Amino acid sequence: MPEFLTLLTPQEARQKVFEALTPQVKLAVESVPTQEALGRVSAREVRAPHPLPMFNRATVDGYAVRAEDTFGASESLPAYFRVVTEVGMGQETTVTLGSMEAALIHTGGMLPPNANAVVMIEQTQRIAEDEIEVYRAASPWENTIRIGEEVKEGEVVLPRHKRIRPVEVGGLLALGILQVEVVKKPKVGIISSGDEVVPPDAPLRLGQVRDVNTYTLSALVSQCGGEPLPYGILPDQEEALKKALDELKAKCDMILITAGSSVSARDYTARAIQQMGAPGVLAHGINTRPGKPTIFAVCDGIPVIGLPGNPMSAYVIALHFVRPILFLLQGLPPEEMKPQVEATLTVNLSSTAGREDWVPVRLVQDAEGLRADPVFGKSNMILALSRADGLIRIPAAATGLAAGEKVQVELLE
Amino acid sequence: MPEFLTLLTPQEARQKVFEALTPQVKLAVESVPTQEALGRVSAREVRAPHPLPMFNRATVDGYAVRAEDTFGASESLPAYFRVVTEVGMGQETTVTLGSMEAALIHTGGMLPPNANAVVMIEQTQRIAEDEIEVYRAASPWENTIRIGEEVKEGEVVLPRHKRIRPVEVGGLLALGILQVEVVKKPKVGIISSGDEVVPPDAPLRLGQVRDVNTYTLSALVSQCGGEPLPYGILPDQEEALKKALDELKAKCDMILITAGSSVSARDYTARAIQQMGAPGVLAHGINTRPGKPTIFAVCDGIPVIGLPGNPMSAYVIALHFVRPILFLLQGLPPEEMKPQVEATLTVNLSSTAGREDWVPVRLVQDAEGLRADPVFGKSNMILALSRADGLIRIPAAATGLAAGEKVQVELLE
Repeated sequence: MPEFLTLLTPQEARQKVFEALTPQVKLAVESVPTQEALGRVSAREVRAPHPLPMFNRATVDGYAVRAEDTFGASESLPAYFRVVTEVGMGQETTVTLGSMEAALIHTGGMLPPNANAVVMIEQTQRIAEDEIEVYRAASPWENTIRIGEEVKEGEVVLPRHKRIRPVEVGGLLALGILQVEVVKKPKVGIISSGDEVVPPDAPLRLGQVRDVNTYTLSALVSQCGGEPLPYGILPDQEEALKKALDELKAKCDMILITAGSSVSARDYTARAIQQMGAPGVLAHGINTRPGKPTIFAVCDGIPVIGLPGNPMSAYVIALHFVRPILFLLQGLPPEEMKPQVEATLTVNLSSTAGREDWVPVRLVQDAEGLRADPVFGKSNMILALSRADGLIRIPAAATGLAAGEKVQVELLE
Repeated sequence: MPEFLTLLTPQEARQKVFEALTPQVKLAVESVPTQEALGRVSAREVRAPHPLPMFNRATVDGYAVRAEDTFGASESLPAYFRVVTEVGMGQETTVTLGSMEAALIHTGGMLPPNANAVVMIEQTQRIAEDEIEVYRAASPWENTIRIGEEVKEGEVVLPRHKRIRPVEVGGLLALGILQVEVVKKPKVGIISSGDEVVPPDAPLRLGQVRDVNTYTLSALVSQCGGEPLPYGILPDQEEALKKALDELKAKCDMILITAGSSVSARDYTARAIQQMGAPGVLAHGINTRPGKPTIFAVCDGIPVIGLPGNPMSAYVIALHFVRPILFLLQGLPPEEMKPQVEATLTVNLSSTAGREDWVPVRLVQDAEGLRADPVFGKSNMILALSRADGLIRIPAAATGLAAGEKVQVELLE
């Protein structure tokens, strides 16, 4: 399992993981109150238990009538109607209209059983306590919304495997659907390793660094709909890592390890992953910057990703590999739309042919449009990322990008 | 305060609210653990309490040396070094290197006090227990990251009024900053009104509809960083509304009312808002579809928005007016970047000149690219929105859009 003998392209690595994983993905399901389902993914198709609206409704303020009684009405030759009732909001209407009879009605009110149009109040005039003139003919069902016009009984109102937005919450509650079956949040075990790594709240001695990966990865996992299970910090010891992996394998749907930084730490990380289950390590090393030493594995149906120890590298790789795998584990298309904007690159960027690079950029809006300005300095620093608005990709086939080129900026959220 | 006498453009309405509100916005501040600050907005600038890294670090596996000792080294004429120590990960290094002395070091390890370069292990060969050949000259500080190179002491690491992303959480924790001052979430009171409106879990009689607005608006407020305070459903009574507004005014930073649907309900809603405080109602009626009857007010520094009762209209208006006001209340630019994609319109759409329309569309990816397909049927239905991926805008100046036109689709999230 030595690394770097064959560097895969990011596409090849992703494909190997997906091919090994897809047949084994089993989505666990739970029921949650619809009001709390925002951001979750539907586990089953939901159909309307009844039509909507459940009664013919007025969409304007005016008079409910039988449309045929208005035919021929005009400014010069109005039709005369007797107002026989007023429809109360939220009230069932049982009054049946006779010939040339009308009911005063408000927007959202229920039409009388045999009414089939509403004349807008602006097109009428009240000439006596219970009599109006109507100045315009109404066509059948004008200014109404009919039973089932929004949704028919049995119609699909929420497809399977859809992220639930505010409008889905609203649509379900409009139909009285108070609970919804959603995909359980994938549990993601997160191990940070390295003899030099200490918790952020510990006193720091020279030679040590604070753990960052546990927190950036937990935040990303939460944003992508997963549930982070941070395991803590491990020393550079193969046995300790094996023990942690066994423990996490029993309760997680995915495992992330930020490997110790040295070559030997990366090697035993690959060995420890390899013994977890079949097929094991699928790729060790990808031709990208950052992220070259990344390990991709699937062990007994659980994706295990060995990320670089450098927090910036770990985060960029997680965005491009952990995010799509997490989507797959929720039944979503792996490439759910990523927010991006087009901008003009401000400087020349060089790269190595065959290697895919991701470069942090700041976005600057000026008179000539949106500009992408690479963040200066050594780029493999978490604080370089926090100074950036997004990332641009230098494709493997290119040896760089030229100042003035249009680039797609993948926004950091 | 009669509506519709002068319909404002959406831009005019927004500007009136911002002008009345901006001088009065006072951002309340609270301190939260950095680990829980994801999505919050920083209230103050944060500066680095110490440089990062705090010691000169190796960025590769190899040998720490004094660069000048390697000058002239090549494949054919290697330099010979004595290996005097191995730097342990996480350990402080106190050994000072003598002439032609090297220390074995791993990625992330601390350089000896007088070392100023690292030779990659691949460019060396061990020829005895404590002796190596070096095949390449190292330039000063090659393969290292120096004290303060990621961030200097006192440098700004988090500006004021920035949304905290995973990378900011990581950057703060890398510096041991365990608490961060953030803007308090604006509290948004939400009133749903109408005699016909009942809670989603209540039995439904003919003539009634379930409350949807409380839940779609609460979800949107949460997504935008606010804290929804749903008040419940009010009947169409001016006094009940006044009482509710007084109560919410005492504890909210913003108030949303979905007005009863009838003209009279909209009129007394405007009156009830007007008596809450100065300057009161700023606009009543905007030239948009949906959303014409919207009321905009600022009362004693609190923005109060009277939204249409129709759930689809209320949500679309909230996206375009409530969202930017909520950002303003958090110190963010009102027009924080909205995710959008470009697509090709599939059909002709007509509109009225002078009126701005928002039309729900579905996105379909086909061989020729991304297409925006308007959702058919009467569009003012919440279930039409839940069938849509986004909204397109027909500008006021246009009388429609033509099939084949490129349109910007504002994604519904």
